[in-house]
Amino acid sequence: MEQLRGACIIGQSGGPTAVINASAQGVIQTALQAGVITRVLGAAHGIKGVLADQLYEMAEEDPRELDLLQFTPSSALGSCRYKLSDPDQDDRDYKRILDIFMKYDVRYFFYNGGNDSMDTCNKISKYMQKVGYSCRIIGVPKTIDNDLFGTDHCPGFGSAAKYIATSCMELYQDARVYDTGTVAIVEIMGRHAGWLAGAAGLATWAGAGPDLVYLPEVPFDMDQFLSDVEDFYRRTGNCLVAVSEGIHYADGTFVSEAKTSATDGFGHAQLGGLAAMMADVVKNRLGVKVRGIELSLLQRCASHLASQTDLSEAYMAGKVAVEAAVSGVTDKMVAFRCTRDDNGYHCEPQLIPLTDVANVESKVPRDWINEKGNGVTQAFIDYALPLIQGEAPRPTDHALPRFVRLKKVLAK
Amino acid sequence: MEQLRGACIIGQSGGPTAVINASAQGVIQTALQAGVITRVLGAAHGIKGVLADQLYEMAEEDPRELDLLQFTPSSALGSCRYKLSDPDQDDRDYKRILDIFMKYDVRYFFYNGGNDSMDTCNKISKYMQKVGYSCRIIGVPKTIDNDLFGTDHCPGFGSAAKYIATSCMELYQDARVYDTGTVAIVEIMGRHAGWLAGAAGLATWAGAGPDLVYLPEVPFDMDQFLSDVEDFYRRTGNCLVAVSEGIHYADGTFVSEAKTSATDGFGHAQLGGLAAMMADVVKNRLGVKVRGIELSLLQRCASHLASQTDLSEAYMAGKVAVEAAVSGVTDKMVAFRCTRDDNGYHCEPQLIPLTDVANVESKVPRDWINEKGNGVTQAFIDYALPLIQGEAPRPTDHALPRFVRLKKVLAK
Repeated sequence: MEQLRGACIIGQSGGPTAVINASAQGVIQTALQAGVITRVLGAAHGIKGVLADQLYEMAEEDPRELDLLQFTPSSALGSCRYKLSDPDQDDRDYKRILDIFMKYDVRYFFYNGGNDSMDTCNKISKYMQKVGYSCRIIGVPKTIDNDLFGTDHCPGFGSAAKYIATSCMELYQDARVYDTGTVAIVEIMGRHAGWLAGAAGLATWAGAGPDLVYLPEVPFDMDQFLSDVEDFYRRTGNCLVAVSEGIHYADGTFVSEAKTSATDGFGHAQLGGLAAMMADVVKNRLGVKVRGIELSLLQRCASHLASQTDLSEAYMAGKVAVEAAVSGVTDKMVAFRCTRDDNGYHCEPQLIPLTDVANVESKVPRDWINEKGNGVTQAFIDYALPLIQGEAPRPTDHALPRFVRLKKVLAK
Repeated sequence: MEQLRGACIIGQSGGPTAVINASAQGVIQTALQAGVITRVLGAAHGIKGVLADQLYEMAEEDPRELDLLQFTPSSALGSCRYKLSDPDQDDRDYKRILDIFMKYDVRYFFYNGGNDSMDTCNKISKYMQKVGYSCRIIGVPKTIDNDLFGTDHCPGFGSAAKYIATSCMELYQDARVYDTGTVAIVEIMGRHAGWLAGAAGLATWAGAGPDLVYLPEVPFDMDQFLSDVEDFYRRTGNCLVAVSEGIHYADGTFVSEAKTSATDGFGHAQLGGLAAMMADVVKNRLGVKVRGIELSLLQRCASHLASQTDLSEAYMAGKVAVEAAVSGVTDKMVAFRCTRDDNGYHCEPQLIPLTDVANVESKVPRDWINEKGNGVTQAFIDYALPLIQGEAPRPTDHALPRFVRLKKVLAK
């Protein structure tokens, strides 16, 4: 494969995570060292920064600050939720992207995101192929939701899972402290897949977690739920419940749907307020003290509880993306192939076609959820437990996080 | 002072904290070593466990497990919200407590809690004096609200403050990640005092925190609030707001009041749902994207972010209580006298009369809040910053917290 010299762009897209910046750091630091990459540009707010010609000159950043990227949650370059049109219908965005690529002689494009971002990445890749613009395009996976197809798991999931499990263990201590019982309902992110809600089951496995866990993979039945809660409450005097924001009835209606009609840029219903609503239902039907708790954004930005395994893998994903592209690979996403056996846990990167990944959602296997649909099985624990291991360093200043401070010098 | 031989009771009361068990550990381990204390009993659910004759034999616990108490949030012995009647009106509870004290030859009573618990402690102390039962009674302060009178601060506040400041810094990264702006409103505990909401100002001081902070010490004005938010949002494209759950209008009405009418055992209105309500108001008036986030129970049980300063002081408070009682002191609460100067921060325990403490609330001085009433001043930062210092060890098992496991053997 011949050497391809030129600039690279790294963009971050979709909802942030505790480790998406570790992947950006992997890309940026590897690209800055790669001889054939002449310039490293960070896109402000993902593909929208490319369209707006808002690109940051990463070589202008202090290398010591770049080292802090991996300990900084959220997307340091800024993110977006922007769906590219079908290029056969409307190719204006693609032409604009091509213009920008040509303007800066961009020959490498790394896009760090989840399902929708891999769709963006795939569309750009196919367009550049179609128009014959020589460019290597690699997707770097990211999503706390863990629903990307073709990879054992996604960077971001392990840290969110660790935060959720730890918080649930703490809530378990707290929500049962009084002699008068409480039913507490914890709402966890995950629109269509229950990976994050399932992570609450790690707390249960550790002996102090939700008594009941509901994932969107199993149709929700409010009467069965109330019966489960009542049964548990009557027997033990308390009940801690974890629910995915995405639980829905058999007909597909989200349980939370009545609460809101707002949608995000991709047409997804914006969920939220479910815990409070379900707590209300429990209170009205069972007459017990309730508490609804929404982990909200906290679960996706808690870098103070990041999993070192997740952090290392996120960095590796970025590094591998650049190395693969430099060696000639394009039109792929970095994925993980993992083994969990008596020799422990091992994770190897691999490269899979972007086309296979885009818009396909990976869900929790039905047999990793118990028969009653209100908890996870040991198979889920065996899968998730290795992903939360390891304490990440936490650079601080006066005991508060010391996050990266980027200069964000605009490229000319 | 003559030696007083007999059993002791330790009880935990009111809302739990990340470090209330550290105080219990201080009491229990010091009492187990004190020759004159013949038996160490833990009350199940505070004073209700005394009334119900539900006392645990602490000597039966594995000493290695007792060492884990300080890393376990919430009240390991169980808590209660129970207001003792005025003994002149109804002395049945007091007679019952005296019966139990006599049954177990209890000569030392340590009660760990906040304002209401110090009222309980004070009433029992005065009753025992009145009936001439020789018993030494010491209050051990605890409350994340930090509103106990007569002490520089309360154990529990520093750890909650650290959690709030850290979480706000993470949310600050997250809630401004998109190119489309967001107004995010974080709701923080604190019924009548704004210490906890003020702690969000530590994040602002560190360069990544709420743009606006509202404490209950300043009457809330919704129009001024909307104007503050709009001004900030128009200038910067985003706005992160921290509000105390206890903010109220000039006439004393809680801003959240319309949302709920439930009350806890002390007749306090149960607050909550304020962030969502205020986010709605902002959305309707300013037409911007909003997000309401309630830190809920998470902020009072996050032992994974405990301040080592807080943890050490909480243990010390328990230890000092026992040492003082053994040396003859009674009818007092342990308080802290602190200095903050060029030599750093120093904290000394002292003992103050229970009568002075009971039912008096300490609030944030007006001049520690800025003139506009939407942020804290440097004086607040100088006060709070030392209290969040130091990283506490975090015993784990498979990367998840390893909390104490008590046998809870009932005393016969």
